[in-house]
Amino acid sequence: MRIIGKQEVEDIAIGAALLGTGGGGDPYIGKLMALQAIEEYGEITLLDVDEIPDDALVAPSSMMGAPTVMLEKAPNGEETVAAFRQLEAHLGKKIYATFPIEAGGVNSMLPLALGARLGLPVVDADGMGRAFPELQMVTFYLDGISATPAVLADEKGNTMLLSTIDNVWTERIARAATIEMGGSTMTSMYSMTGKNLKDSGIKGILKLEEEIGKSIRLAKLNNVNSIDEVLKKVDGFELFRGKVSDINRKTETGFARGIASIEGLNEYKEQTLQLRFQNEHLLAETEQRLLCVTPDLIAVLDAETGLPITTEGIRYGARCVVIGIPCHPKWRTEKGIETVGPRYFGYDVDYTPVEELVKKGVAY
Amino acid sequence: MRIIGKQEVEDIAIGAALLGTGGGGDPYIGKLMALQAIEEYGEITLLDVDEIPDDALVAPSSMMGAPTVMLEKAPNGEETVAAFRQLEAHLGKKIYATFPIEAGGVNSMLPLALGARLGLPVVDADGMGRAFPELQMVTFYLDGISATPAVLADEKGNTMLLSTIDNVWTERIARAATIEMGGSTMTSMYSMTGKNLKDSGIKGILKLEEEIGKSIRLAKLNNVNSIDEVLKKVDGFELFRGKVSDINRKTETGFARGIASIEGLNEYKEQTLQLRFQNEHLLAETEQRLLCVTPDLIAVLDAETGLPITTEGIRYGARCVVIGIPCHPKWRTEKGIETVGPRYFGYDVDYTPVEELVKKGVAY
Repeated sequence: MRIIGKQEVEDIAIGAALLGTGGGGDPYIGKLMALQAIEEYGEITLLDVDEIPDDALVAPSSMMGAPTVMLEKAPNGEETVAAFRQLEAHLGKKIYATFPIEAGGVNSMLPLALGARLGLPVVDADGMGRAFPELQMVTFYLDGISATPAVLADEKGNTMLLSTIDNVWTERIARAATIEMGGSTMTSMYSMTGKNLKDSGIKGILKLEEEIGKSIRLAKLNNVNSIDEVLKKVDGFELFRGKVSDINRKTETGFARGIASIEGLNEYKEQTLQLRFQNEHLLAETEQRLLCVTPDLIAVLDAETGLPITTEGIRYGARCVVIGIPCHPKWRTEKGIETVGPRYFGYDVDYTPVEELVKKGVAY
Repeated sequence: MRIIGKQEVEDIAIGAALLGTGGGGDPYIGKLMALQAIEEYGEITLLDVDEIPDDALVAPSSMMGAPTVMLEKAPNGEETVAAFRQLEAHLGKKIYATFPIEAGGVNSMLPLALGARLGLPVVDADGMGRAFPELQMVTFYLDGISATPAVLADEKGNTMLLSTIDNVWTERIARAATIEMGGSTMTSMYSMTGKNLKDSGIKGILKLEEEIGKSIRLAKLNNVNSIDEVLKKVDGFELFRGKVSDINRKTETGFARGIASIEGLNEYKEQTLQLRFQNEHLLAETEQRLLCVTPDLIAVLDAETGLPITTEGIRYGARCVVIGIPCHPKWRTEKGIETVGPRYFGYDVDYTPVEELVKKGVAY
């Protein structure tokens, strides 16, 4: 158990943006909510997953819908409280703690805001170890845990409890209701027992985010290289350095798809990196080599500050460093690759772990 | 308490079509479901509303969405059972009995099918005393009873429990979810206590439907005039007799709107009745006089058989008798007229009770 306050929230937000691999929504508004909740209600209790009783009810809190809508109608917090109360009534059990469904962007911050507001502990575990766009893309799905009963709530006070035959129907019905409810809702899907979370969750994700954020923050003060510090924290690899020379975006079926081209600098001179994204950065390659591909993590960092850059934030001329991070072993299983591997996203390559791809000599 | 079987269900279906005033969906498929349920599970227990304990939980069962879709994907009954189970889990109470939300069409028959299937008593009371198209058009709404918690279920096994801030949001969210769930869902809205139903429901509606159906069925055998028999049962008035000379239909925003013109015969010769409908028949007038207007009931009966004709069933050349029936007094209050009066449906006339309109001398 550990108590965290505003500085930790600031650091976590930076780490969440990095593990969000460019997507997951900007953590900015989630961070503001968490900071405001701490201001009003006090600091947040973080629990290790091993501190949760096996039979306790734990429930994630996250948002569904367009983060851009959320900026216009910021959640007031009441809707998540309403959603939690409905879930408790349905299951006939108190929620022991909340946790983030994903590491990355706004959804890493919302459970912190809720934890402060309700005085509810936050468990340091998530279901992705990164960000992904669809609701079956969680380790809980790999382990056969149902997304429902799921609750949705809007800022007006409407709530919905959903029980579906599979997670595809959860996605369809919740999505339709979310659009009708104004474009974004606060949700709790994949509520489970403490035992489930121990077996299926990815542990220590908030701690890792905090350490990433902290090392970037302190690098400047300590006059060390922030990117080297980050790579040590995440066991990652530098894949490329360069300058954004082209960026091609289109919004298709609700996804921000596109390709960024990065012209190499220093030892990468004469090479061009192609970075393919669909909300998240999913594939990095040069003409000669595949460098990193989903479900391994690809993060784009500002070459000077080391701060992560989102897919939406990539600007022409920006100097950046692209890094690759091995994903959690659960994603490297057959079902994992099927669920979130390159072919699921429409890329015609097989998955190869980033640590093999970075070895010299692995080429197209 | 009374036990009813197949013959009663057949009679109720005819009475329901008549009180449905042309709309509410054809009771045919609902009747088939009820007959099949009796065949499989045995007869149905009907209760008078006064036989229900004040604190018992009673829940309507009805369908939302397009009845035409329902013909293609007939409910299997499981979905209503699932909806009821979810409502019980949410409220922490067993459902004591079900009842029809409206008198008319398919929704008068579904509770009978469910009652047989679950061995659940059906209460002889409804919330309209006729059919209306929108979910706030119930006496329960006039009396401030909430539509939620509402449950929706589809034939695949997906269920949803909805709690909204008002009935407009119930309508919006449930409608969007229903479309996503395939165009029609089984629902239970306006669950309430026995006391609520005693105070706010319209009593004896199934009995009335049965008597209407029975009198039409027996008229032929007894060689009496079926329309006269019906008028006696419902305290109604013959408004017009004639032959359909024109029918103008369009489907707008999900409603079958239109006007039928009926050329007078016998004492109505030289007159033409204009019958305006929006799912239900809502206004009957000649050039000279307003004859009947919503919320009073307008039914079109086949001149020969006395059987009710739906708005969709009106055919050129059909000989028919148009009758008017006083609505329940609850609809004649200020809030009642506001909710279902002519101006709500876009007709620029004031409501006048049918029994005043039929007096000679009341003219435009």
